[in-house]
Amino acid sequence: MSSTYGKNIRVTIFGESHAAAIGVTIEGLPAGIAIDTEELQAFLDRRAPGKDRFSTARKESDTPEFLCGVKDGKTCGTPVTAIIRNSDQHSSDYASIADTPRPGHADYTAEVKYGGFQDKTGGGHFSGRLTAPLCIAGGIALQILKKQGIEVAGRVTAIGGITESEEAMLQAIEQSKAEGDSVGGIVECVATGVPAGLGDPMFDGMENRIASAVFGIPAVKGVEFGEGFSAAALKGSENNDAYEIRDGRVFLKTNHCGGILGGITTGSPIVVRAAFKPTPSIAKEQDTVNLKTMENCKISVPGRHDPCIARRAVPAVEAAVALAILDALLEQEKYKAFIG
Amino acid sequence: MSSTYGKNIRVTIFGESHAAAIGVTIEGLPAGIAIDTEELQAFLDRRAPGKDRFSTARKESDTPEFLCGVKDGKTCGTPVTAIIRNSDQHSSDYASIADTPRPGHADYTAEVKYGGFQDKTGGGHFSGRLTAPLCIAGGIALQILKKQGIEVAGRVTAIGGITESEEAMLQAIEQSKAEGDSVGGIVECVATGVPAGLGDPMFDGMENRIASAVFGIPAVKGVEFGEGFSAAALKGSENNDAYEIRDGRVFLKTNHCGGILGGITTGSPIVVRAAFKPTPSIAKEQDTVNLKTMENCKISVPGRHDPCIARRAVPAVEAAVALAILDALLEQEKYKAFIG
Amino acid sequence: MSSTYGKNIRVTIFGESHAAAIGVTIEGLPAGIAIDTEELQAFLDRRAPGKDRFSTARKESDTPEFLCGVKDGKTCGTPVTAIIRNSDQHSSDYASIADTPRPGHADYTAEVKYGGFQDKTGGGHFSGRLTAPLCIAGGIALQILKKQGIEVAGRVTAIGGITESEEAMLQAIEQSKAEGDSVGGIVECVATGVPAGLGDPMFDGMENRIASAVFGIPAVKGVEFGEGFSAAALKGSENNDAYEIRDGRVFLKTNHCGGILGGITTGSPIVVRAAFKPTPSIAKEQDTVNLKTMENCKISVPGRHDPCIARRAVPAVEAAVALAILDALLEQEKYKAFIG
Amino acid sequence: MSSTYGKNIRVTIFGESHAAAIGVTIEGLPAGIAIDTEELQAFLDRRAPGKDRFSTARKESDTPEFLCGVKDGKTCGTPVTAIIRNSDQHSSDYASIADTPRPGHADYTAEVKYGGFQDKTGGGHFSGRLTAPLCIAGGIALQILKKQGIEVAGRVTAIGGITESEEAMLQAIEQSKAEGDSVGGIVECVATGVPAGLGDPMFDGMENRIASAVFGIPAVKGVEFGEGFSAAALKGSENNDAYEIRDGRVFLKTNHCGGILGGITTGSPIVVRAAFKPTPSIAKEQDTVNLKTMENCKISVPGRHDPCIARRAVPAVEAAVALAILDALLEQEKYKAFIG
Repeated sequence: MSSTYGKNIRVTIFGESHAAAIGVTIEGLPAGIAIDTEELQAFLDRRAPGKDRFSTARKESDTPEFLCGVKDGKTCGTPVTAIIRNSDQHSSDYASIADTPRPGHADYTAEVKYGGFQDKTGGGHFSGRLTAPLCIAGGIALQILKKQGIEVAGRVTAIGGITESEEAMLQAIEQSKAEGDSVGGIVECVATGVPAGLGDPMFDGMENRIASAVFGIPAVKGVEFGEGFSAAALKGSENNDAYEIRDGRVFLKTNHCGGILGGITTGSPIVVRAAFKPTPSIAKEQDTVNLKTMENCKISVPGRHDPCIARRAVPAVEAAVALAILDALLEQEKYKAFIG
Repeated sequence: MSSTYGKNIRVTIFGESHAAAIGVTIEGLPAGIAIDTEELQAFLDRRAPGKDRFSTARKESDTPEFLCGVKDGKTCGTPVTAIIRNSDQHSSDYASIADTPRPGHADYTAEVKYGGFQDKTGGGHFSGRLTAPLCIAGGIALQILKKQGIEVAGRVTAIGGITESEEAMLQAIEQSKAEGDSVGGIVECVATGVPAGLGDPMFDGMENRIASAVFGIPAVKGVEFGEGFSAAALKGSENNDAYEIRDGRVFLKTNHCGGILGGITTGSPIVVRAAFKPTPSIAKEQDTVNLKTMENCKISVPGRHDPCIARRAVPAVEAAVALAILDALLEQEKYKAFIG
Repeated sequence: MSSTYGKNIRVTIFGESHAAAIGVTIEGLPAGIAIDTEELQAFLDRRAPGKDRFSTARKESDTPEFLCGVKDGKTCGTPVTAIIRNSDQHSSDYASIADTPRPGHADYTAEVKYGGFQDKTGGGHFSGRLTAPLCIAGGIALQILKKQGIEVAGRVTAIGGITESEEAMLQAIEQSKAEGDSVGGIVECVATGVPAGLGDPMFDGMENRIASAVFGIPAVKGVEFGEGFSAAALKGSENNDAYEIRDGRVFLKTNHCGGILGGITTGSPIVVRAAFKPTPSIAKEQDTVNLKTMENCKISVPGRHDPCIARRAVPAVEAAVALAILDALLEQEKYKAFIG
Repeated sequence: MSSTYGKNIRVTIFGESHAAAIGVTIEGLPAGIAIDTEELQAFLDRRAPGKDRFSTARKESDTPEFLCGVKDGKTCGTPVTAIIRNSDQHSSDYASIADTPRPGHADYTAEVKYGGFQDKTGGGHFSGRLTAPLCIAGGIALQILKKQGIEVAGRVTAIGGITESEEAMLQAIEQSKAEGDSVGGIVECVATGVPAGLGDPMFDGMENRIASAVFGIPAVKGVEFGEGFSAAALKGSENNDAYEIRDGRVFLKTNHCGGILGGITTGSPIVVRAAFKPTPSIAKEQDTVNLKTMENCKISVPGRHDPCIARRAVPAVEAAVALAILDALLEQEKYKAFIG
């Protein structure tokens, strides 16, 4: 029952949507790292709701308070804990649905797992709101990686099956909203400047590490690298990335492998895609059950919900990928003084 | 630099394709578990090569020797180590290519990571042969799960883009082989009988746990659950799984979520698909480089290679999924005496 | 660079003595555990300073605020985070000594490790104040264990070499204080009601687990079990604990082994002793160096310091032992459904 | 139920005294490390029995077979597995005592933990023989550390309470043997050349790390650092180690702290002592029980047993300390590229 990611850098996320606070403890950050709080806030603002007509109207400040581990703007080397106080909670919105699990949510599975003792309001620990502390940790990781020449950038490549113009994607969202419905989407994330040699064989490969982090974002149902599922339809001669020498160094002519071979980075950009299911909270009436009376019933989830999670999830994916890369980078640094 | 999977059951895989042996140490197995060695051997034989015209001609015995942790056919509760001696190795096959990384393989990335000290013959620790010890551990996990009413079964659902009859898939393999090429494929794995409530929020969800294990199988480039990437093109009303009461118990009417919501099992079957890239070793000539002379060159990999990994990988996927479920099951057992 | 304890229950302690807050995140607590906050506060008060003439005059409230993971007084099963805001900080007390490491403290070693970026005020993350969050976690563990019939109780058995009456021990403290000096002490902790069978062979034995936790308390320089160091002077016939049948059950006639054999509990009380060095902060002048000017100098640490840490450390030892036992208990529960 | 040590270097020990083999898998070793097998064998021979009149007459070859992870005498960077085949087993020696737990051994606690499924012959996984694979891993660690200028050396400082000449200690052993009894002892281990800055605060301090490893050696009942338990009887002015500048660098004038402050190394030698209880196997008759008939009975353990474990345990302590230091060293290397 842990909510922790990483081996070298350890990110522990805590909180429930309607508890006093949500937050994160980050262990294993190098000492003396300057944290640019403005840049971090700008990063957090990218996932914050309430900014446009598509996203939930809930106003969240999402300004982290650093409780410890940072002094004079620099990391101390000791655990960093940052929290975001919850406010603007409409717990009453959820009172009526406490016993009627929302289809597509963790309401029912959490009930079974925690025997009814879980915080049911607002999705509790399973709320998308928990991506805020993920973004705090990931935002710091991004700043550290940037100084090492590594950049991580995500974007939405499909919404509701639409892969064309952004305008067409936004229309798909708007239409689903008008219908009291929601749509899924795909987020692609590319990490450039990643040195070759990161990641380990078997279960600690870069794919495993990144997938472990990205599946931690609510609503992700698939993760693929490079050609991903398309590779299954290719021939070896099409999918293999040939090598060549350029300027006395080895390069891959193509990047079908998404920057990873045998779990280890090639030096080419890491390319990862995450499939987000449509927001489960929809206004449309759905069948569900009342867990107290054990009778069938109907549910409509009006609330304040994004009709498409994928858009706001872009920084969360960047955060997850950045943490995975930083963790692998620290892993690799261990051996520099010894190899050879 | 670890090759270990799991938190409650810990599976450490060791060995190189042409070393004295490959093997596995399994920690955390309950004591007193009877291991049906015939059933285990039959499971291992499903991944063994040399059985038909499509797979590599290398004859491997793949009969594990249990060194410890098992007495009178039952687990002792202490670490179980089983090894498979390597034999029938044609290291000379690889001598000529030691310095010319095969496109699509880990040859180059391993060279960068290990500074040339890795075992280069036969793919070393990155060989598909390492799925044999994975299958030893997974085969034991399958036997334990079976007694708990949990069954895990995989099958190939696509080869080279063909999703039709098995005959059509086999033809695709045969054709690629004739062309000195290879094809990718998709393996779907379904676990039935899994109780609701397994898995944890955030980074230890069932998706994370299963993906962590499945990406440990060489050549996997994508993992998805339930509708997976298709969910990104659906609406909430299409993708959500409604609840209903049947016989006084809660059921999900559909299983778009693949048996997992919020990282926790629903009680419906877990459905996971893994995308396998085409076998990188192909007879067709490819561009590569000589790492010693740092000159461009050509490579053809005649050897004894499966033109399609996906088929033999089915038991490896089952093994990975079984280990992930057993690990989550042990996790959940911890709390039974306390909850409520 | 982690500050985390445990495998099944994970306790991550964060904070610095003069940061905004100190606190703890506890993962892996069973759901539905009622936390008696009054009992917890009473436990925390036992370590709080400022209560008598012997301990530091610093007034700390030490009242934890639970940020999440607890609802309606019961654990949710998700991570529990509790913090204690720091107040009454006299950072200026430390300004003059920032560059002159106090002998016996972590000032110098932290400087080397963190390159000067550590929080130097009040001992930072190395302050004895960090035992407060340890006691929050441990206090909850104690409440859980109590319901399982396990009680953990510590006491001071020696101060400054005095093992006689409490009055004689207090006199030793008073005398050392009058001399501007300090004294060490020994804390013995006994856990009763511990079932046989907890703990694992090799590195996860109960001795290893408890020592790992107890050495996490600042100033502990030795940990022993049962006869401990005295056992080294005994004969096998004197140290072995003979078995006997009583009321149809197996008992050990004596408990020289301190309740642990082969890393596994015997069912007899666990007996552990921790040696605390004398408080390093003393008024007496000591030789030290100025790390900026790299010159020798003198230091006297007037501040508000306990002349004997061991007394206030008793609940910290109980907390550490309780966490180790709870962790091992959860480990063992995993297998109950399988063994046999 | 794990038998694994370490975070950066992971040592998993497997095997039972009378199983087919015992062995060790070491993950996280840097690639390209030359292993001096002669030096390793000489190290292993120091713990091997059958060499003099004081130790058990069992002849064990203790020559490790490296199955993988080493090529051309150098580490590959992938997991290293080495095994020692068991031979010269006198299982029949144990047949009569399978149901009568030997006082002071893990026989009874293992029975409770593993429900009777443990390997009972020869102590099974709890046998002192398992220190052989520990010494394989530790011996390699010692070779790596040596190249970094770190040396680890242990010696017996007391036997049966005798701290005088070696001759007096040996007499104590001989006398106890003549009486059909055994004696305990103390092993002191000193690590020199350890750089300042290794180890972490709280639960991953050098004391915690070393104690975790050393308590993994059977029969250790106490671990202390520097003054250890004696520190509890000292005053701060006596126990604190003053600083001074010598040749432009900071030194500690004394080393009461045993080279560790706040869990972090000072740069002075690490000094650790482990208390070994007397060998539990003695010829003298002891009270025990028959677990089948649940009746009281007597036991005498003639077998081939060292009357004093401490002597042969010296390399095991060195191995444990070396592994702990190497693990901490790798931890620290991670941050070198970032700090500042």
